[in-house]
Amino acid sequence: QNVILINPFEVPKGQEAEAIVYWEAARDFLQQQPGYVSTELHQSIQPNARFHLINIAEWENIETFKAATSKMRKELTQKRIEGMKFYPALYDIIRK
Amino acid sequence: QNVILINPFEVPKGQEAEAIVYWEAARDFLQQQPGYVSTELHQSIQPNARFHLINIAEWENIETFKAATSKMRKELTQKRIEGMKFYPALYDIIRK
Repeated sequence: QNVILINPFEVPKGQEAEAIVYWEAARDFLQQQPGYVSTELHQSIQPNARFHLINIAEWENIETFKAATSKMRKELTQKRIEGMKFYPALYDIIRK
Repeated sequence: QNVILINPFEVPKGQEAEAIVYWEAARDFLQQQPGYVSTELHQSIQPNARFHLINIAEWENIETFKAATSKMRKELTQKRIEGMKFYPALYDIIRK
């Protein structure tokens, strides 16, 4: 069973474009790693949303996800965006 | 084009089961309203996740979503769960 990563981003005003570029670099790295299934970046329609961006990705399992993000932290150097906050966690669907 | 509701829930420790019952009552109401497409309740695998539950739903458009939630606030009486916080917003997918 695949696991689902949901990662809400708090993005400071004026940093929206940089945040998308940041996400794109991470996607380009992660989609080459074993266990990657898919990813979708969601952007809020309303300008005052707490989370301007939310990434939702699927991975084959927890182990491949953890290995890929650990590798990314070592190998992908990106300039941190001041004030940007992330709340990544792994989820299962429990109700429909 | 459908719109996507993403609603992260902060759930106080010990209130996880009550939060799911709360969500189920809202789902039962909303899925009978015009414009409803689908919903999926996600539960975090890790116990220390900031958002224990995240609801992801699709609606046909903003107007039907707003009409349905407005109707729910008037007609569906539920006991508030102390300390539970919601961050609902509407999203489009902008990157894959």
